Amino acid sequence: MRGSNRLHSVATENSPLLSYDSNNADAETVEKYTRFKETATKCIRTYFPITTWLPNYTCDSLIRDIIAGLTVGLMLVPQGLAYATIAGLPLQYGLYSAYMGCFVYCVFGGSKDVTLGPTAIMSLMVSRHARGEPSYAIALTFYCGIVQLFMGLLRLGFLVRFISLPVISGFVSAAAITIGCGQLKSLFGLKNIPRDFIPNLYQTFKHIGETNPWDLTLGSCCMVILIILMKLNRIKWHEDEDVTKLQRVCRKFLWIISTARNALVVLLAAAVAKAVESVANDDKFSLTAKVKPGIPDFKPPALSFRVGNSTISTSQVLKDLGPGLAVVPLIGFLESIAIAKAFARRNRYTVDASQELIALGIANCLSSFVSSYPVTGSFSRTAVNAQSGVATPAGEYHILRNIWNVRRIDLVPLVITFFGCFYDIEVGILSGIGSALCILLYQVVWPPVSKINRGDYILLKINGNLNYPGIEHVTNEIQSSALADPLPLGIVVDLSVVTSIDFSVTQALLTVIEEMDNKRVPIFFTGAQDNVRDMMVSSGIDPESLIKVYKWL
Amino acid sequence: MRGSNRLHSVATENSPLLSYDSNNADAETVEKYTRFKETATKCIRTYFPITTWLPNYTCDSLIRDIIAGLTVGLMLVPQGLAYATIAGLPLQYGLYSAYMGCFVYCVFGGSKDVTLGPTAIMSLMVSRHARGEPSYAIALTFYCGIVQLFMGLLRLGFLVRFISLPVISGFVSAAAITIGCGQLKSLFGLKNIPRDFIPNLYQTFKHIGETNPWDLTLGSCCMVILIILMKLNRIKWHEDEDVTKLQRVCRKFLWIISTARNALVVLLAAAVAKAVESVANDDKFSLTAKVKPGIPDFKPPALSFRVGNSTISTSQVLKDLGPGLAVVPLIGFLESIAIAKAFARRNRYTVDASQELIALGIANCLSSFVSSYPVTGSFSRTAVNAQSGVATPAGEYHILRNIWNVRRIDLVPLVITFFGCFYDIEVGILSGIGSALCILLYQVVWPPVSKINRGDYILLKINGNLNYPGIEHVTNEIQSSALADPLPLGIVVDLSVVTSIDFSVTQALLTVIEEMDNKRVPIFFTGAQDNVRDMMVSSGIDPESLIKVYKWL
Repeated sequence: MRGSNRLHSVATENSPLLSYDSNNADAETVEKYTRFKETATKCIRTYFPITTWLPNYTCDSLIRDIIAGLTVGLMLVPQGLAYATIAGLPLQYGLYSAYMGCFVYCVFGGSKDVTLGPTAIMSLMVSRHARGEPSYAIALTFYCGIVQLFMGLLRLGFLVRFISLPVISGFVSAAAITIGCGQLKSLFGLKNIPRDFIPNLYQTFKHIGETNPWDLTLGSCCMVILIILMKLNRIKWHEDEDVTKLQRVCRKFLWIISTARNALVVLLAAAVAKAVESVANDDKFSLTAKVKPGIPDFKPPALSFRVGNSTISTSQVLKDLGPGLAVVPLIGFLESIAIAKAFARRNRYTVDASQELIALGIANCLSSFVSSYPVTGSFSRTAVNAQSGVATPAGEYHILRNIWNVRRIDLVPLVITFFGCFYDIEVGILSGIGSALCILLYQVVWPPVSKINRGDYILLKINGNLNYPGIEHVTNEIQSSALADPLPLGIVVDLSVVTSIDFSVTQALLTVIEEMDNKRVPIFFTGAQDNVRDMMVSSGIDPESLIKVYKWL
Repeated sequence: MRGSNRLHSVATENSPLLSYDSNNADAETVEKYTRFKETATKCIRTYFPITTWLPNYTCDSLIRDIIAGLTVGLMLVPQGLAYATIAGLPLQYGLYSAYMGCFVYCVFGGSKDVTLGPTAIMSLMVSRHARGEPSYAIALTFYCGIVQLFMGLLRLGFLVRFISLPVISGFVSAAAITIGCGQLKSLFGLKNIPRDFIPNLYQTFKHIGETNPWDLTLGSCCMVILIILMKLNRIKWHEDEDVTKLQRVCRKFLWIISTARNALVVLLAAAVAKAVESVANDDKFSLTAKVKPGIPDFKPPALSFRVGNSTISTSQVLKDLGPGLAVVPLIGFLESIAIAKAFARRNRYTVDASQELIALGIANCLSSFVSSYPVTGSFSRTAVNAQSGVATPAGEYHILRNIWNVRRIDLVPLVITFFGCFYDIEVGILSGIGSALCILLYQVVWPPVSKINRGDYILLKINGNLNYPGIEHVTNEIQSSALADPLPLGIVVDLSVVTSIDFSVTQALLTVIEEMDNKRVPIFFTGAQDNVRDMMVSSGIDPESLIKVYKWL
């Protein structure tokens, strides 16, 4: 039966008119089947973006991807080691975090330009939550993935829109300063410096006399070399047609050197340290710990574990992670979506915020199986870095001046976030978001009302939306207008820029209309848009008090 | 020196010109002094409203107030006993709660029509938090007062505006049903019924076979008598001029009977119970506990105390009171300010929300010294009851229909609050407030954008305000318009009803303008109000893209 139906469906697809005439029920089945097939395909393409590009993947693409992969790899290895230091974890965890995310994102992710892995900001967050204990970091990765996955499935990607630009700017600047200052101790070769920002800075400068000159020299040299190599990549070559082959090879060579600069410097510094050690028969440099060789086992993350001599239960772990369970997934997502959107805009495709959350969630969940700490798309691993404008503390002065020129009150969330982040990253971000929301809600509670006397009438123009928190302010204004001396002949409320009201507003208006009636000061509403007018009329407000124009005033 | 200055100041007040000519410094001193005096007077009048009316208080006012006081007293005593039952506390606590608030409010309060005391809703909140333990109730009173006082001093009275009408309606209806059902056990004379709503109702109906017929009969008779006496007060007498003296005395008598109905019924029922007991030599009725005689000591509230055999520390008390520390002060304030505003409107004076909070805060703090539970202004002790429209569950159907007609989405917070309150009052109110806020923020995140094709141009009208959470939706709309087929000659964004933007919005617009430039689809903004236009221009948007009219379209 089913088989014949399928056969028939193929036939009818070619001759729909015939099938319509002969058998209506069959036509419906066909239509249903076609629609189901379309929906399923769409669904699979949404949730598994790999299905859209893999069928078109060519040998040429593969070669280009291998080159790109090697390039990213050369950057990622030394970066991973450095980020693990920021996160306060043994070095190998930076490497563990670097690979699983890429595989998963390749299947579920919607942007071909994003690579997932450890980032400076996530490392800073981890250093705060993991307290140098890898088990905490791995549990955080798992929970972070779960939260992101659920947010994605519930399509809560929009939540990130509540993080305004001043908050991002304040946070990124504070994070950059925290990370930078946190590395001073390594540059000076100081030992036993605490991790929190203020004590770290205080102890670093207190013990600066104990600086290891070897560390300082090697570190400074590495920095200078890195900066020079970075600049190499920014040289704009003269675009002539008569470039010799030799010139072209040289340029390519410089590009490779520049791109692989992190790896080169690490190898160079290691060689220098080894040479000095063998000559002086002594560790002149403060060496980082040994990196454990091999890849980690694939095993479920431990959600309760032993730290030192005490066992920490799952609920205790959740309690210790605290607000980090909300902030880490959100900041991770923010970083990732910002980069994905920037690339999508430049390369003319669109990304679905919720699908990105799902991809990130699955990546983190699976990464926790290979002992990774939370991963995300990276600002700094990409070329967007310089364009994002807020990612460097040097951009801070510029943005301060811009905000000052545009709307000064927006400096408040920036300043709160910036200083809050030095005390505690979560507190900084959450209070920044909160203060920005308060500024937003201020105009909801106190919508601006301008009062104009027009002859014997008073015109009240409401310059904003009218929702239940704001109606009391408006009725207060109406009441105070009705107390004017001499008593006005009437009050006209201009609703022309009010685009929506609600039930509480209509009820308060009814009360104030009745009150004005008792005082024999009639009240009129003008310029109401259609939906506002409809709501007012259905709440029982006399349509005669709703006038279309007020030119007669 | 000072004395002479003062004398001089009196002189100069009468001859300002002369003083100005002779001595400028002195004139300044005088001006400063006068301004200081004005400010001080204004300040005292604001914080101690008693200073505005006490100087005008007459003997006549005193007599009228004594009569009013006796009337309220006759209502308050039986009410206090009943409310203590709802609060689950020994009866005398209802009386303790009834008097201190009135004295304090008389000094600090701004409405002459409000009396503070126990109310049904506060009693219900106390029953949830005090768990039948007076010490918890008294500590709650104290903390509630502190919170209200601080909210008043910080002028946070506006926070109550976030409780929308549907939330109030849902809460009051649920509270009325909870209180009513909670009293069924007493009507049926059932013992050992738990206090929480669902178990209470379940156990009441499970044990309904054990009903005490004496209790049921007496209770039902009392209710019928109360309803008849209440109706007496609502009779509209024929307003003739030839009313005989006898008729007038009869009417006055009926009014007194009706007003004192609660006290009368209590006395009557007590007499019946006593008579039955002496005839039958047995307690036929379920009697309430003995009321402890005397007034309570004036002593600071205990913030840590013993319950049974265990001592409860201050921090444990705070933890046990939990979200009640936020919700009880807020609901208390809501009840009180609603009544004060209603009276102020009717009797043509204004109340200052923050001063009401201060009065309520001091009243609660001092009340806790006389073992009171939290007090507030009452919906039901006043004539406003019938007019408030939301205070009775019978009003519920009416409001449901109204909301359905005006804006259906506003039913969501009502329903959430209503059902939430049966689970837990705080959860109900807070989730109601939260859901109303989500509905409000929905249009902030997704401001409605209407798209119209006008020839080769696309017109996007933004029907709402434009803040940082909403700009992504708008830029998405702009981007999708630029992908239209055929490619539009330009995109015009109509900002005529946008009354405010912020820094993040300007930056996103800059990005989208640059992007459209690259695509060679110019973008124009039209109808921007002056402040919006200024912000856009100072953010660096080309003023030429801001056009005043779009009639040429």
